[in-house]
Amino acid sequence: MAKRVAIVGAGVSGLTSIKCCLEEGLEPTCFEGSSDLGGLWRFTLSGEHVEEGRASLYKSVVSNSCKEMSCYSDFPFPEDYPNYVPNSQFLEYLKMYTNHFNLLKCIQFKTRVCSVTKCPDFAVSGQWKVVTFQEGKQESAQIFDAVMVCTGFLTDPYLPLDSFPGISAFKGQYFHSRQYKHPDIFKDKRVLVVGMGNSGTDIAVEASHQAKKVFLSTTGGAWVISRVFDSGYPWDMVFMTRFHNMLRNSLPTPMVTWLMARKMNNWFDHANYGIAPEDRIQLKEFVLNDELPGRIITGKVSIRPSIKEVKEHTVIFKNTPKEESIDIIVFATGYTFAFPFLDESVVKVEDGQASLYKYVFPVHLQKPTLAVIGLIKSLGSMIPTGETQARWAARVLKGMNKLPPPSVMIEEVNVRKENKHSGFGLHYCKALQSDYIAYIDELLTYINAKPNLFSMLLTDPRLALTVFFGPCSPYQFRLTGPGKWEGAKKAIMTQWDRTFKVTKTRVVQESPSPFASIFKLFSFLTLLVAIFLIFL
Amino acid sequence: MAKRVAIVGAGVSGLTSIKCCLEEGLEPTCFEGSSDLGGLWRFTLSGEHVEEGRASLYKSVVSNSCKEMSCYSDFPFPEDYPNYVPNSQFLEYLKMYTNHFNLLKCIQFKTRVCSVTKCPDFAVSGQWKVVTFQEGKQESAQIFDAVMVCTGFLTDPYLPLDSFPGISAFKGQYFHSRQYKHPDIFKDKRVLVVGMGNSGTDIAVEASHQAKKVFLSTTGGAWVISRVFDSGYPWDMVFMTRFHNMLRNSLPTPMVTWLMARKMNNWFDHANYGIAPEDRIQLKEFVLNDELPGRIITGKVSIRPSIKEVKEHTVIFKNTPKEESIDIIVFATGYTFAFPFLDESVVKVEDGQASLYKYVFPVHLQKPTLAVIGLIKSLGSMIPTGETQARWAARVLKGMNKLPPPSVMIEEVNVRKENKHSGFGLHYCKALQSDYIAYIDELLTYINAKPNLFSMLLTDPRLALTVFFGPCSPYQFRLTGPGKWEGAKKAIMTQWDRTFKVTKTRVVQESPSPFASIFKLFSFLTLLVAIFLIFL
Repeated sequence: MAKRVAIVGAGVSGLTSIKCCLEEGLEPTCFEGSSDLGGLWRFTLSGEHVEEGRASLYKSVVSNSCKEMSCYSDFPFPEDYPNYVPNSQFLEYLKMYTNHFNLLKCIQFKTRVCSVTKCPDFAVSGQWKVVTFQEGKQESAQIFDAVMVCTGFLTDPYLPLDSFPGISAFKGQYFHSRQYKHPDIFKDKRVLVVGMGNSGTDIAVEASHQAKKVFLSTTGGAWVISRVFDSGYPWDMVFMTRFHNMLRNSLPTPMVTWLMARKMNNWFDHANYGIAPEDRIQLKEFVLNDELPGRIITGKVSIRPSIKEVKEHTVIFKNTPKEESIDIIVFATGYTFAFPFLDESVVKVEDGQASLYKYVFPVHLQKPTLAVIGLIKSLGSMIPTGETQARWAARVLKGMNKLPPPSVMIEEVNVRKENKHSGFGLHYCKALQSDYIAYIDELLTYINAKPNLFSMLLTDPRLALTVFFGPCSPYQFRLTGPGKWEGAKKAIMTQWDRTFKVTKTRVVQESPSPFASIFKLFSFLTLLVAIFLIFL
Repeated sequence: MAKRVAIVGAGVSGLTSIKCCLEEGLEPTCFEGSSDLGGLWRFTLSGEHVEEGRASLYKSVVSNSCKEMSCYSDFPFPEDYPNYVPNSQFLEYLKMYTNHFNLLKCIQFKTRVCSVTKCPDFAVSGQWKVVTFQEGKQESAQIFDAVMVCTGFLTDPYLPLDSFPGISAFKGQYFHSRQYKHPDIFKDKRVLVVGMGNSGTDIAVEASHQAKKVFLSTTGGAWVISRVFDSGYPWDMVFMTRFHNMLRNSLPTPMVTWLMARKMNNWFDHANYGIAPEDRIQLKEFVLNDELPGRIITGKVSIRPSIKEVKEHTVIFKNTPKEESIDIIVFATGYTFAFPFLDESVVKVEDGQASLYKYVFPVHLQKPTLAVIGLIKSLGSMIPTGETQARWAARVLKGMNKLPPPSVMIEEVNVRKENKHSGFGLHYCKALQSDYIAYIDELLTYINAKPNLFSMLLTDPRLALTVFFGPCSPYQFRLTGPGKWEGAKKAIMTQWDRTFKVTKTRVVQESPSPFASIFKLFSFLTLLVAIFLIFL
C-alpha cells in the first residue's frame, strides 16, 4: 500500500511536494488553510482579511528572480511572460503547473492544520496524527505515514515595538508592512518606512510617487542591486553561474567581499547614497530594487539611520537632533516563522534557526518521516530550491534514500549555528542563508541527479560549457538521474532566446562598427601580452 | 536716457534677461501672458486651462540636469535641494532668484504680446512698436529701443495626425502629451504612448504603474540614460567636463559614435530592449529616465516600432500583423516653436530652424536690436545657456558689443542649416542642437568672460584642474570678466560637497580594504607598463 503523506500548505513548495510525492508513488494529501493555492503569491485586496499564517503581498510585487531562473525545473514559464514576473502572472503560472501535473485533486482547501503529533507507535511506524479543521465542519484526525511542512518562512510578522522608544505616544498611523496593499494611503503624507529589506524598499519607493516626503530608516544598510544588471541582463542570470560561483568560493573572503563591494558600487556608490552596509563581511540578502537610487537623487526618498525617539507627531533619528514630522510609519521589520501545529520536541526554533539537517529533516526524530520544505533563504530562487528539497525528501520518506546517523546530522546543524567560516568565499550571515548552487548540487548528489560536467564535456561539450559558464538555470537539475526531463537540454540552450524575445520587440538593422572589431582585436592582443608577461 | 527693452515671457530665459538688462543699465519691461512667472516650470492642475503658447508640465516632472549644472551661474540652488529638482521646487528657486535680484518690479503679468513691429524709422533708430493686450483692458502700444524674445521652443504642440492612418476611426481616447497631467486616467487601461522623447518616456513609465499594459511606440529609438550615472554620480557632472568634451571633439566621429554607443549600452543593451537608435551617427538628445529598462524587464512597458494602422479599438504596428487592443493613445510627438507676434521678415523659421546668428540675432535686420533668448537645445542645461545668451545680448543691445557684418552672420546660419560636419567629434542632428561647452565658451569670449585656463594654471592650479577635469558647472562662467561673481571659485570647489550632502544622510564608518590599495597600486603599475610599451 502506498504511503500516505500529509502536506501542509499549497504554496510554491507545497505544490511541488505534491508532484514529487505522486512521482515517487506516494499518496499525498495537501491541506491548505485558504480558499485557493499559491500561498505567498496570491494577492488579496486590502478590503479582504489578511489571513493569519500567510504572508501578504502588495499589489505591485514583482518576482526578484527572473523567469529562466525561478521556474520549476521541468516546467518553464510561458514564452510571452516578462523576465521578472508580476505576482498575478506568477499565480497563473502556479495554476498552470498545478493543472499540467494534475495536482488539484490532492488539495483540500479551507482546511487548517491544527496539530501534527507523533502516533504512540511512532518509534516503530513513524506515523503522524494530523488534526485538521475544515470551515463549517468539525475537527477531524487522520493518520499519515509522513508529513511535509510547506508553510515557508514568512508566516508571522516581526514587529519589535520595544525597540522604538516613544512609539506608544505616536499620534499618527503605524502598521506592519504586511498590512500594506496600495500606495494611495500615502497621498500627500510624510511617510517613514522602517527597515530596508525588499518590502521596505519597495514600499518606500512606491510611497514616494504619492507622498509628500518619504524617509527610509535603516540600521544595517544593504547592498541594493537592480534587476537590470550588467548591460541590462537579468541580474541572476549573470550572477548565478557555476563559473562565477567557483571563482567566488575559491578566493579569500576579504577579497571576495571587496570585489563584491566594487561590483555593488558600480551602479551607485552606496556610501554616497547613505545605504552602505554596516557589516561588509557577512553577506545578507541583496535588496532588489530598480528605482531606489533614482528616488534618492531626486529627493523623493531620504535615507535615515535608526530611530532615536518617536514623539506625538515627529521622529528623531540617531544622527541629528532634528525632529522630522511624520504622518505614517510602516514597519517593514520582516517576518519570523513558526510551526504552531508542531511540538517543540519535533522542530526547535532558536534565534531564527531550526534544527533541521540540510534545512529539511528534524535531527532528533527516531524516524525520518517529517520534512520541512522551503525553509531556507538562498541568494537564488525559492522555487527550484524547494523543488529540489522536495525531490530529495520524497525519496527519503519513501525509504529510497537514507539519512546519516543522528550524530552527523546534529553536527551539521551545530556547525551552521556557529556560523564559522573557512576563510574562503562568501560569508552568509543569516541563519537561513546558504550558497544556492552548492546547496542544490548537494541535494542532487543525494538523489543521483547532479549533472556530471566532466563526462558531459566529452559527450556534449557545447552543453557542458553552457552549463558551466551560463546561468545556473533550474533545467540543469533535470539533465540526468531520476526525474530527468527530456526537454532540459533544449531549455538550457534556448534560455537567452526566451529572455530577449519579450524585450526585443523592435529591431533595428545595425551595421557593425569597424571599431568593434578593432577593439576586440586589441583586447585579444592585450590578453596575449598579459599572459606572456605572467609566464615570462 | 537708458534704453528701454521689451522682454517677451517670464520663464527661465525671460527672468535672466531682465537681470542682465538691469545690470547693463538698460530699462527692461517684461510681458508675461499668464498670471505668474516660471514659464514651463509652473505646473498647473489638469482642471485648469492649458494656456496657449506655454508648454505644459505633468505633475511628476523632475529636472533633467542636476542642481550644480542647471543653476544660474551666480545663484546656486539652496543646499538642501535634491540633486535633480522636482518642478515645484524648481519654481521656488526661480522665485528666489526673482526676489534676490529684485526682478518682479519689471514684470507685467497677464499681458500678452500681440505684435512686435519695426518702427517706421527702424533703419535709423532700431526701435520697435510693441502692442500688448492686458486682461480686462484695451490693447496698448509702446515704443521700445530693443526687444528680447524669451518664449522658448516648446510653445506649439506638434501632432501630425496624418502620419497615423486610420486615427479618425479610433473610438478610444487620444490626446497630445501636453494635455497629460496625472496617471490616474490610465488606471486599468491599455495605453499606447507614441514618441520616445523625455515626455513620452516619462508618461509611459508613469502610466505603467496604473495601466493594465503600456506600449511605447518609437520610430527612431533613442539613447536612454539614467540620472544615476557611473557609480551613482549625476550624469551631467560626469559627462559635461571640459576634459571629456576635448576628448570627444578630437576623435573621429565614427569612433566617438562607437564609444558613445558602448557607454550607453553599459547600463542596458539598447538593442536587446528594443530601443536602439536607428541613426547612430547623428546625435539626438539623450532621453533621461531612471526607470524605463526596469519597466521593460518586468513587462510593464513594451516597446513597439511605428504604427501601421489604427482601427476602432486596436492598433497594428509595423513589425507584426497582430492587432493590440488600445484604450488610450498619448501622442508625445513634441513641440514646435513659432513667433506669432513677429513678422516673418524679422525671423524666418524653416524646417524647425530659425535664421539667427549664434541662435540669438536675426541676420537680416539693419539694426541688432532684437534678440531671441533660449531657442537652442544643447546637451547641457537650458538655464546657464539662456543666461549666457542674455549676458551677451544685453551688451549688444546696449551697444557695448558689435555683431559681425551680415554676410558673416548669414554664412554662419547657412553652414548650420547644411549641417556639414568636420568628421571629428559628435554630430548633432537637430536644427537647434549644439555643443554645450563650446557654444557657451564662444559667447563668453564675446563678452570677455571666458576663463583662461593657462593663466589660471599658474595662479591657481587647483582651481584650474577642477575647472578642466571637473564638471563644467555654470559658476565657471563667472570667474572673470564683466559679471564676475566673487563666490564663483568657492562654489566650484564645493560643488561635490553640496551634491552628496543631500544623499549621504546616513554615514557608516568604513575601514579601507587592503585590496583597494593593492588594486590602485596594480592599476598604476599597469599604466606604467602601458606607457612604457607605447614609447618602446
